[in-house]
Amino acid sequence: MYANAVQELIDELGRLPGIGPKSAQRIAFHLLKLAPEDALRLARSITVAKERVSWCRRCFNIAESAAGGVSPDDPVECEICRDSRRDGTVVCVVEEPRDVVAVEKTREFRGRYHVLQGAISPIDGVGPDKLRIRELLARLDPEGITEVILCTNPNIEGDATALYLSKLLKDLPLQVTRIASGLPVGGDLEYADEVTLGRALEGRRAVGE
Amino acid sequence: MYANAVQELIDELGRLPGIGPKSAQRIAFHLLKLAPEDALRLARSITVAKERVSWCRRCFNIAESAAGGVSPDDPVECEICRDSRRDGTVVCVVEEPRDVVAVEKTREFRGRYHVLQGAISPIDGVGPDKLRIRELLARLDPEGITEVILCTNPNIEGDATALYLSKLLKDLPLQVTRIASGLPVGGDLEYADEVTLGRALEGRRAVGE
Repeated sequence: MYANAVQELIDELGRLPGIGPKSAQRIAFHLLKLAPEDALRLARSITVAKERVSWCRRCFNIAESAAGGVSPDDPVECEICRDSRRDGTVVCVVEEPRDVVAVEKTREFRGRYHVLQGAISPIDGVGPDKLRIRELLARLDPEGITEVILCTNPNIEGDATALYLSKLLKDLPLQVTRIASGLPVGGDLEYADEVTLGRALEGRRAVGE
Repeated sequence: MYANAVQELIDELGRLPGIGPKSAQRIAFHLLKLAPEDALRLARSITVAKERVSWCRRCFNIAESAAGGVSPDDPVECEICRDSRRDGTVVCVVEEPRDVVAVEKTREFRGRYHVLQGAISPIDGVGPDKLRIRELLARLDPEGITEVILCTNPNIEGDATALYLSKLLKDLPLQVTRIASGLPVGGDLEYADEVTLGRALEGRRAVGE
């Protein structure tokens, strides 16, 4: 129905996650209406990100080379792995790079990370072999890791991944912990769902400890 | 929080309509995970669309030059305006190029279009001067147009635009019509909102006509 170049743009936008055909069309026309330099800035930022950003060869967080151009064959380390002040004996295992950002914002954690780049999800065809689990196991001994914090999401996929990892790690000489589930701070007992409230009760701790 | 190139990509994506900060982040990580050629295809389709697509110099629909490169100073005509089999005396006035596609899909209309590229919306700072109204008026006489169909959306902005145009055109020697509002075909009286049902009653027609 549309001119070729427009249809192709709509198709490409429609492949992005969370963008349906109607949104793709709206975004395409928005881009066509923009001044050329504004639209091309988006194109360029995609190109630059793909050129410069790769995965940290140690923890699989995002890693950027300051000078232009890294190849997948020549991976770099992320800022956190390069920071010698971080505690290398504790590793926080998360699903995605955005989870690293979330944990960093708490300022409660001074160890290193391991990004699985997903969670076990049979419905999406993601088995343990598609995650960076092999790479995690390979780090434990050489880096002298003594504690692994399973910090995957508290949902079905994240819990399954944490359970899978805890079984894998249980015979190794290290402590394996899971982040607590419970009521969010500032939340309201009345409005909590029963699963969350159940977990909060289950995870109760002695006061004054 | 993120590496520069990633933050820039998130920012650029966040400027798109309907994309909030969380979606921008999700799309950015999706692009980083894609194979380079897949992500770069999106970048290229933006670049190609901006190079090839411009506005039809007659009706302001999207127009594409088959050979690479049109400049805004050298506009082309869209496929519909170039099609000599179309009835040049009837012009259907719509808000956006996507509305041209919607009308074309009905196969009920064989005239030409005029795309206003928006609708009057004081709240968004869009007055009549920001629409392609001057260009519409300039077409009427030279093209021998005898009917103008006001096919803007049946909402506040579209109705305001149609009202504004109908006042502008009322003293000219041409017929001005507005598309009908009423119950959608296949719809259900019980679930129709009262404004739509009111319009449907108001626009009732003798049966057997």
